[in-house]
Amino acid sequence: MTTGPGGWVKEFGTMWTFDAPPLDYWQGAYGFRPTPAWLEHVRLSAARLPGCSASFVSANGLVMTNHHCARSCITAASTPDSNYQETGFVARRREDEKRCPNMYADQLQSIEDITQPIRSAVTTTAPGRQVEQRDSAITAFQETCGRETGLMCQVVSFYQGGMYSVYRFRRFTDVRLVMAPEGQTAFFGGDPDNFTYPRYDLDVTFFRVYENGAPRVADHYLKWSAAGAREGELVFVIGNPGSTGRLLTMAQMEYLRDVTYPAQLAGYQRALSVLRRIAARSEADRRRVENQIFSLENSHKAVTGYRRGLVDQEIMAKKAAFERDFRARIARDPALAARFGTVWDDIARMQAELASFAVQSRWYGFGGSQLLNLAGGMVRMAEQGALPDAERLSQYRGPGLERVRAQLLREVPVDLEADRLTFTAQLEAASKELPAGDPYLAAVLGGRTPEAAARALVDGTRAGDLTTRRGLIEGGAAAVAASNDPMIVAARNIAPLTTPYVKRAEALNAALAGKAELLGQAIFAAYGKSLPPDATFTLRISDGTVRRYPMNGTVAPYRTTFYGLYARSAEFEGQAPWNLTPRWVAGRDKLDLTTPLNFVSTNDIIGGNSGSPVINRDGEVVGLIFDGNIESLPNRFIFTDDVARSVSVHSAGIIEALRKIYDAGWIAEELGGGQTR
Amino acid sequence: MTTGPGGWVKEFGTMWTFDAPPLDYWQGAYGFRPTPAWLEHVRLSAARLPGCSASFVSANGLVMTNHHCARSCITAASTPDSNYQETGFVARRREDEKRCPNMYADQLQSIEDITQPIRSAVTTTAPGRQVEQRDSAITAFQETCGRETGLMCQVVSFYQGGMYSVYRFRRFTDVRLVMAPEGQTAFFGGDPDNFTYPRYDLDVTFFRVYENGAPRVADHYLKWSAAGAREGELVFVIGNPGSTGRLLTMAQMEYLRDVTYPAQLAGYQRALSVLRRIAARSEADRRRVENQIFSLENSHKAVTGYRRGLVDQEIMAKKAAFERDFRARIARDPALAARFGTVWDDIARMQAELASFAVQSRWYGFGGSQLLNLAGGMVRMAEQGALPDAERLSQYRGPGLERVRAQLLREVPVDLEADRLTFTAQLEAASKELPAGDPYLAAVLGGRTPEAAARALVDGTRAGDLTTRRGLIEGGAAAVAASNDPMIVAARNIAPLTTPYVKRAEALNAALAGKAELLGQAIFAAYGKSLPPDATFTLRISDGTVRRYPMNGTVAPYRTTFYGLYARSAEFEGQAPWNLTPRWVAGRDKLDLTTPLNFVSTNDIIGGNSGSPVINRDGEVVGLIFDGNIESLPNRFIFTDDVARSVSVHSAGIIEALRKIYDAGWIAEELGGGQTR
Repeated sequence: MTTGPGGWVKEFGTMWTFDAPPLDYWQGAYGFRPTPAWLEHVRLSAARLPGCSASFVSANGLVMTNHHCARSCITAASTPDSNYQETGFVARRREDEKRCPNMYADQLQSIEDITQPIRSAVTTTAPGRQVEQRDSAITAFQETCGRETGLMCQVVSFYQGGMYSVYRFRRFTDVRLVMAPEGQTAFFGGDPDNFTYPRYDLDVTFFRVYENGAPRVADHYLKWSAAGAREGELVFVIGNPGSTGRLLTMAQMEYLRDVTYPAQLAGYQRALSVLRRIAARSEADRRRVENQIFSLENSHKAVTGYRRGLVDQEIMAKKAAFERDFRARIARDPALAARFGTVWDDIARMQAELASFAVQSRWYGFGGSQLLNLAGGMVRMAEQGALPDAERLSQYRGPGLERVRAQLLREVPVDLEADRLTFTAQLEAASKELPAGDPYLAAVLGGRTPEAAARALVDGTRAGDLTTRRGLIEGGAAAVAASNDPMIVAARNIAPLTTPYVKRAEALNAALAGKAELLGQAIFAAYGKSLPPDATFTLRISDGTVRRYPMNGTVAPYRTTFYGLYARSAEFEGQAPWNLTPRWVAGRDKLDLTTPLNFVSTNDIIGGNSGSPVINRDGEVVGLIFDGNIESLPNRFIFTDDVARSVSVHSAGIIEALRKIYDAGWIAEELGGGQTR
Repeated sequence: MTTGPGGWVKEFGTMWTFDAPPLDYWQGAYGFRPTPAWLEHVRLSAARLPGCSASFVSANGLVMTNHHCARSCITAASTPDSNYQETGFVARRREDEKRCPNMYADQLQSIEDITQPIRSAVTTTAPGRQVEQRDSAITAFQETCGRETGLMCQVVSFYQGGMYSVYRFRRFTDVRLVMAPEGQTAFFGGDPDNFTYPRYDLDVTFFRVYENGAPRVADHYLKWSAAGAREGELVFVIGNPGSTGRLLTMAQMEYLRDVTYPAQLAGYQRALSVLRRIAARSEADRRRVENQIFSLENSHKAVTGYRRGLVDQEIMAKKAAFERDFRARIARDPALAARFGTVWDDIARMQAELASFAVQSRWYGFGGSQLLNLAGGMVRMAEQGALPDAERLSQYRGPGLERVRAQLLREVPVDLEADRLTFTAQLEAASKELPAGDPYLAAVLGGRTPEAAARALVDGTRAGDLTTRRGLIEGGAAAVAASNDPMIVAARNIAPLTTPYVKRAEALNAALAGKAELLGQAIFAAYGKSLPPDATFTLRISDGTVRRYPMNGTVAPYRTTFYGLYARSAEFEGQAPWNLTPRWVAGRDKLDLTTPLNFVSTNDIIGGNSGSPVINRDGEVVGLIFDGNIESLPNRFIFTDDVARSVSVHSAGIIEALRKIYDAGWIAEELGGGQTR
């Protein structure tokens, strides 16, 4: 446990909410105490996009975000003759700005703590009904608020349900594409360089928000910094981090470390080895599965990173120290001890129970084969459809049943060889983990080797055929029961084995959620609001410093430059994903190659922060968040800043590229990016 | 244990001797089987310099090595008006080539196994006498060989003394400086980037060997490759690796891991914390100790790297598997078992005994303070000088006593504050490790705190004063015994405590050397010559591949380029040690920035290999070894090539720099570096 000014507990990071800015901590750490007006200006200059963050950066509605947050719009704006993902896009005139379907920008107007009204709406003591009552109270609250204020109102929970607030947004729905670089320039280095630094990505896109058909004129927007991010300076990131797990107990972290993540990593490895075998078949196959391989490698990299903090004894010791402090504070007060004293042990017990049948939960079911999954869906449809809604497995409750039916009635292309290989790998892994004589293995293998069983089932089934599926679904439970399709037979045998484990896990997870909420309430009782709540895709302000860090025996610089972009491409002889687009090859001599392109800082970010502006003390844009380094992945659970860094596009790099490469000096002017280099 | 073609055991690496080239392994691994003529040509093209490697690279005696191997010559060639270390040096005409004092180049003419004659020269069974007999046989052999052949003959032991060979060299003593870049260009990135990659160092220097006042004309020299190193190609490194410990037993490696290295690292940390305190005093102090700090950080980095392999369970499991295999081979044959069967357990027992008093060995003595060291020297001089030579501690035997006396009679500048701080840190660390009531602590501390004791001793002694020392030495044992200088008193009390431990350690280490020699003999018996012997600064040929590697979540490229040099400098805004020299700033636009500068390969190298040429199948120069990456440091004990890489200057980068930056196109022509870019 590391503490700082204003009672800051470092391991909890710096994702502060705007209704509880840590003024004393900032004052103590940086000698900086922003005024309410500064905070309001910054909040109103921020914008939330679907899944991403952004900011208003001109008086005429210009909005800056990441290229990877704008892909759907860039694709939608493309025409049969022009692929803007490939070529980039620059509107030459206002009329050329292209409307993005389904895009919106939310501006946060106000926040109000409504924990009390939400809690008092829950009057029942029946646990199942409590959730229902709370959810209807939330829905009602949001509707009333929306009607009364004309704003988009969202009730958000913090501290795992320990606190509720309403966030009121102004929503702008006329969002148009102004400028986007080529996808290759935005994502230079592709999946291999993803989550890493040094980086060389111009991951930026500009939108413009319109109101009543005209660019929105606004007072609150971020001005552009003349110098951009400089080493050692204090910077803030304003954005919407999606999800963290810093309030998890040691028992929960250990479960992730020892049960969840190892299984997930093994699954990625299995899938990768199958895909690599497929890729080796032919050049066409290689191209077909290449992106799947990259994407799985990336997931493997991310989960390995999350887990790294959990296996780091030094990091976990800090977490353990915090938990001891937390428990001691609760134990000291008899009233608190009575309410919360057992919550850690309760959680530990439940996690242990989950762990006791984790092997069954992992393997029992319809995974490992698309065809088994389809067969299992049909068996479950017949079985669950016959039950009253409340008695069904959660996936089949309410509209769930219909969703599953629709999926089954869709055409699903199945690569039989891939399915056979994947299924074989799954069954081999299951055979290693499940005890000999296990009923699931008996049901699927029936004495055969995994390879033979997978081959017989995959080759023998008609579950991949839409007409067959339609017939079985229309025939209902009787048709499914009568089928002698080998995969349907296997699924029929698997289903009753699986059900009790699924039910037991669902009950335990619901109980764990209840305990987590109690823990969230305990946090207030023990620390007040001095600990920032876990990320919930709500607007936060995180402080940090632009700073180099030790890497690989030497030092990673605080910034990269255009020189480095050309260097990394040349190092790989221009091979993808380190290839340069024609525009960058041709424009090289126009650039000042010493211009900074990316930089790192110690701000606390996570997925959802993509597109967040990085600002200095004067509220000016010095950069644009687009990633974290690989050392920052463990921050999901425990924040550190020795080597963990956020990675941003440097404001000066944006201006230089706009002017010299994209012939878009007018955007640079509109940004007020006066510096010419 | 990982085995390959021709019985290759990967963990032992690829430092092959020229009298036992692994032709079957090369054939199997690469489909390449060099002819005897190829091997002879390559051997005769190689040159050994003091502590370094080199190669003949032109018909007129041009020799290529590293800049860091040529520093003494570059400094000696400098004049009061010209500092070539700073400015670089290019001879414009033959007459400008500058003779290097004390430099020579040895060319290996022949190798002969003389294990038998050396062994039969040892006729006594008294262990102490055996070493003496062997050493005189070696000296005699070298002298006779030198007289008979006119060559410089060196008897070298391999396999820890399991084998002896004579290496016969032609020695060239007229070596002149032709071209050297600036030190900053050769060592760009300085200590922080040392042992790391990606790198951007033009670490090259050209000498010319003269005979009878004229450039040496030779048939055997390496031609220059037109393309230079390419990704994926087979390359060989020809050079003189200094020392490895791959034949050490598990018990010896564990001793290094658990005893030697942790103590060494703690010592560096102590020294660093003292130096950092001194550096914080003033800017002048900072500058004064800056290089010491860098150098210690580098040592810390190196030892951490060596140890990394020893704490890596996967790497150690391979070593353990080899040891099991080795022991099983010996155990299978009763005759071998009788000779060698107990050697591993014997070694383990001796290491355990050394470990049992490692704490005393570490702290008892005159370390931690320059002044205590001087006082200890005077006490030992008096005491050891009075003994017959054979009864002295080894340091004081033969010419040792005179050496110590000379040191004591030299002026030694002592920074009193630094000495006090260092001594305090030493005593604090000793107090933590030694038991309460330990006699050494009692003798030095006398009940005081470490800080108080260090202050009293350092401030109270006159041992720093040369006149005082001279007086004591001239006064002999009586004067030392009568002194009431507090540091002399402390040293007098420490000496008798220390002696028994020193003697015990010396005896154990001598016995260990004997066991190590047995182990070396056992290696032959079990594996023949299929395992290359440990490095002994003799000529080796190592095979490898030019290859990228996984690093930090992404990929380290197989090469860097001039772009990268300018990039890394710009990333640090030109701060030292990433500053560019004026010549490189001015010459930028003349360069093809995509020219490769450094590259990596999987060849097996270690200190001593500096300056080794990297050649392709055609025997052409494609690069010049100058370092290993940080991941290669564990290779000292167990060779791996997943991420361990040798780092070389690329041949094309040398040519480009000669032509465009150093105005030395004539050297490029002489090298036959025909490619213009």
